[in-house]
Amino acid sequence: MGPGPSNVHPRVLEAMARPTIGHLDPEFITMMDELKALLRDTFMTKNELTFPVSGPGSLGMEAAVANMVEPGMKVAVCVNGAFGGRIREMVERYGGVPLVVDAPWGQPIDPSSLDETLSDNKDVKVVAFVHAETSTGVRSDVEALARVARKHGCLTIADTVTSLGGIPVKVDEWDLDVVYSGSQKCLSSPPGLSPITFSERALNTVRTRKTRVQSWFLDVSLVVSYWSGAKRTYHHTAPINALYGLHEALLMVQEEGLENAWARHQRNVELFKEGLDKIGLETFVSGKVSLPELAIVRVPVGIDEAAVRDRMLKKFNIEIGSGLGQLAGKIWRIGLMGYTSNEKNVKLCLNALEDALRRN
Amino acid sequence: MGPGPSNVHPRVLEAMARPTIGHLDPEFITMMDELKALLRDTFMTKNELTFPVSGPGSLGMEAAVANMVEPGMKVAVCVNGAFGGRIREMVERYGGVPLVVDAPWGQPIDPSSLDETLSDNKDVKVVAFVHAETSTGVRSDVEALARVARKHGCLTIADTVTSLGGIPVKVDEWDLDVVYSGSQKCLSSPPGLSPITFSERALNTVRTRKTRVQSWFLDVSLVVSYWSGAKRTYHHTAPINALYGLHEALLMVQEEGLENAWARHQRNVELFKEGLDKIGLETFVSGKVSLPELAIVRVPVGIDEAAVRDRMLKKFNIEIGSGLGQLAGKIWRIGLMGYTSNEKNVKLCLNALEDALRRN
Repeated sequence: MGPGPSNVHPRVLEAMARPTIGHLDPEFITMMDELKALLRDTFMTKNELTFPVSGPGSLGMEAAVANMVEPGMKVAVCVNGAFGGRIREMVERYGGVPLVVDAPWGQPIDPSSLDETLSDNKDVKVVAFVHAETSTGVRSDVEALARVARKHGCLTIADTVTSLGGIPVKVDEWDLDVVYSGSQKCLSSPPGLSPITFSERALNTVRTRKTRVQSWFLDVSLVVSYWSGAKRTYHHTAPINALYGLHEALLMVQEEGLENAWARHQRNVELFKEGLDKIGLETFVSGKVSLPELAIVRVPVGIDEAAVRDRMLKKFNIEIGSGLGQLAGKIWRIGLMGYTSNEKNVKLCLNALEDALRRN
Repeated sequence: MGPGPSNVHPRVLEAMARPTIGHLDPEFITMMDELKALLRDTFMTKNELTFPVSGPGSLGMEAAVANMVEPGMKVAVCVNGAFGGRIREMVERYGGVPLVVDAPWGQPIDPSSLDETLSDNKDVKVVAFVHAETSTGVRSDVEALARVARKHGCLTIADTVTSLGGIPVKVDEWDLDVVYSGSQKCLSSPPGLSPITFSERALNTVRTRKTRVQSWFLDVSLVVSYWSGAKRTYHHTAPINALYGLHEALLMVQEEGLENAWARHQRNVELFKEGLDKIGLETFVSGKVSLPELAIVRVPVGIDEAAVRDRMLKKFNIEIGSGLGQLAGKIWRIGLMGYTSNEKNVKLCLNALEDALRRN
C-alpha cells in the first residue's frame, strides 16, 4: 500500500509466467495489436502510436522529453513536487531551457500562472505537467492546463503515471499531445513498462526535428517500425513476459469498466479518510485536488514515522510509503491503487496504522 | 530457436509470477544484493557496481555509451555487424565522434586494425566492441582487443549480450571497463533486463565528466544510489518481477556451473553442425570464430527462406531467425542458447529443417 507498485492480481501474475515466445512471432504481434487497442481505450484516444515503452514510468517520461525537446528549445515545466522536478531535470539534460511554473508542494498548478508564463514567453514550444503528483497526492487540472497551452500554440507533455486507471484521463477530449503512464500504479501490472501515446501533431513535430533524438532507444521514429504499421521490424527485443502481464491487467480494467474503476477508487479513499478521522489522523491534502488513489497522511507530532512503517511491515505485512524531498519525515503516502483499492485493504491498513501508532 | 529470446525454464517463469512487493522492501533489497553477487560471478568480476539496467540489452548498450561518451570525444567503434553499427549510431547521438574499425560481416575484428587506428589517433579515449555479433554469429577476440585498447590508454566498452553464459566472459582477467549483456540469450531469463558492470576506472571517468550524462534514466551516478551502498534510495521503480526471473535464472547458471554451461553449448552446436552436414546445409561461419550459442546457416540457392521459417513455425512450433541488414535472405540464425541448448532441440530443429526444405 505504498505509492506503487500496487498489488498485482493473480491473473496478471499467471500471465507473466506464460512461455516466452519470439518478439516477432505472429501470435505475439497479434497480442501487441490487442495491447495497443486496450491502451487506446484506457487513454481514451484514437492515437495510432500508442504503445508501452520498454522500461518503467521514468523511462516513459524520458521518452516524452527526448522526442519533444531539441537543444535550445524553451519548455514550460510545471513543478509542484518531485516528478515535475524530474521533468525539469530531463529537459535540461536534453538541451532544453526549462521555464518553471511552480506551486508549493501540496498544491495544484494554477492554470493562470502557466498563462502568464506563456504570455511573457512567446517562444515556448512545449508545456509539461504532472497530472497526479505522486510525491504530494495532488491532482492538477490537466484539462485546464492543456487549454492554456493550446491557446498559446504549445504542444503538451502530460505525466499520468499515477492517474491512468484511477481518475479520468481523456487524451483526445483534453487535446493532449504526448501522454505517458506506468504499468504499476492504478493499472496493477508489475513495474517495468510505461504506456505512452503520441498525437499526430506530436509525431509531426518529431518528424520535422532539426536534430536527431539524442536517445537511440527512445527515438519513436525508430520504435514505430516495431510497434506500428503493416510490416513489423526489429528495433529492440521487447520484454515479452512483462507485456503479457500488462495485456492481462488492461483486460481486467476493460472488464471492470474505466468509469467503475474511477468510482471504486473514490469510494475506497472516502472510507479510508473516514477511518483516519476516527483514529485522529489528518490528511495532507483535501478536497477536489486530493487523489483517490493516493492518500497522504500527516505524521503526528512526536511520532517516529519510520518506526511506524517498520511495525506495519513486520507485524501486518503492509508497506506504506514515506515522504520524498521536502516532505521527508512529515507524511506517509498510502496507495489505494488498482487492485489494492478495496474495502478489505482499507480496514486492514487503518487497523494496522492504529496499532502501530499506539505502540510508538 | 531464434537469435533470442531463448526458451525460459519453468522455474524462471514461476519466479516471475511471485507476488510483486515494494522496490524498497527490505526483503527485496536482500534479493537485489544476491542478484548483484550472482551477476558478479557470471561476469567473473569483483566490480562493486554490477547490476541489471531496467530495460533490454539495447538499453544496456545505451547506458554504456551515455555514461562513457562526452560530446566531442573520439571513440573507436569496432563494426563487423548490425550491433557494432548500433553502437556507432549511439556514440554519434551522444555527441561522440566514432572512428570505425571495421571487418566484413562474417569475420571477427582484427586486433591489429584496432592497433593501427589507435596509433594514428592518440586522442581516442574509449574503444567499443561486440564480443558475439548476433547478426553474423561471429566471435571476436575481446581479450586481445582489450589488450590493444589498454596499451593505448583507452577504456573499453564490451557488448556481451549474446556471449554471457554461453562462452567465457572474463571481465577482470581481460581487464574490461564497461560490460553489458542481456537477460534473454544464454542466461535464459525473459527479455527486458540488461546486466551491466563498471570497473572502478570507468566509474572514475564518469565522476570526472565535464558534462552531465545526457540521459537521466541511465546516469549511473544516480542509479548507484538505489543499487549500491548502505542506504538505498529511490531512483526509478525497479521492474520487480523481471528481477525475480533474472535472479532465478542466474541461480540456475550457478547450479550448473559456468564452465559446464560453456561445454554444453559447445557440445550441442557440434551435434547440430554434424546434422546440418548430413542434410547438406552449410554454415556461414566456421572454426574458432563461430559461436556455439548461435549457428548461422546459409540459405541454399533457390530456396524461399521465409517459407521455410514459416513452415517450421506452423508445423513444428519452432522459430528460427532470418538475416539482418546485408545478410537478409541469405542466412538463417538458429539459437542454441541457454535452456534452449540441449540434444532434444538439436534433433527437433534438424528434423524440422529437413522437412521444411523438402517441401519447399
